[in-house]
Amino acid sequence: MDERATYSTANCSIARTLQLVGERWTLLILREAFNGNRRFEQFQLRTGVARNLLATRLATLVEHGILDRQSYQEPGQRARQEYRLTAKGKELYPILVALLDWGDRHVADPEGPAVLLHHRDCGAPVHADLRCDAGHEHLTTRDVSATPGPGARLLA
Amino acid sequence: MDERATYSTANCSIARTLQLVGERWTLLILREAFNGNRRFEQFQLRTGVARNLLATRLATLVEHGILDRQSYQEPGQRARQEYRLTAKGKELYPILVALLDWGDRHVADPEGPAVLLHHRDCGAPVHADLRCDAGHEHLTTRDVSATPGPGARLLA
Repeated sequence: MDERATYSTANCSIARTLQLVGERWTLLILREAFNGNRRFEQFQLRTGVARNLLATRLATLVEHGILDRQSYQEPGQRARQEYRLTAKGKELYPILVALLDWGDRHVADPEGPAVLLHHRDCGAPVHADLRCDAGHEHLTTRDVSATPGPGARLLA
Repeated sequence: MDERATYSTANCSIARTLQLVGERWTLLILREAFNGNRRFEQFQLRTGVARNLLATRLATLVEHGILDRQSYQEPGQRARQEYRLTAKGKELYPILVALLDWGDRHVADPEGPAVLLHHRDCGAPVHADLRCDAGHEHLTTRDVSATPGPGARLLA
């Protein structure tokens, strides 16, 4: 992959994704959104993030269309905000599953994983797998090559 | 998934993985390691990270067995360090591919992705796919359920 050394990383999609969600608290907030949590207090309780950081992170996720903020009101209560994953936000799920997979293999407690993911239809365990469009599965870094795409920029 | 609200997130594998690699520069350094770069100067040039941060991040990755530091010496040059992904480090690859996939869909330039990943054997595009062990592919968050695993801890 030495040829890539002449291409710029300025528009790297990994870097751009990390600019939006690549902060530890943000990914933990998203974890809780995928767990079905929608309210500020739930996010705060389940992640332990400071309230001011949580407010900032939620605002950023709303601004970038990853969470949708809606008002709701229970009878006799004041209006509150809730935060739901958008379609764009839901597409972040493989990132969290890949983080979970690696952690379960390398940093879980001796008892094993704290959380197991299952396919709702058949019950089988779910993992993030590297797969090619021709159907070859369980690819590793040595099975994969990188080439410049249509958005590649030469280094100035 | 409301039942999970009674379980602790203290030993969450996502959180633990993020404690090791969940920092933007660290993931960009790893991106360059997967691109075949091994030297401090290459990491610095390709990521733009400050040298003191790079030194700290590399030391952390070595400490946790994600990169292996080795000395090498070219004829007539002084000895240098190089950093290679360990087997444990190489298993982080699906996280980076998942970040790339999302970025290519949502934040790439209008021309398209800057980098394309291909299966070396057949040339087909490679993506991070959610797949169950029974072979069902392209799962989304709504196809997946989470249950407490053997390491689950009840909230005190």
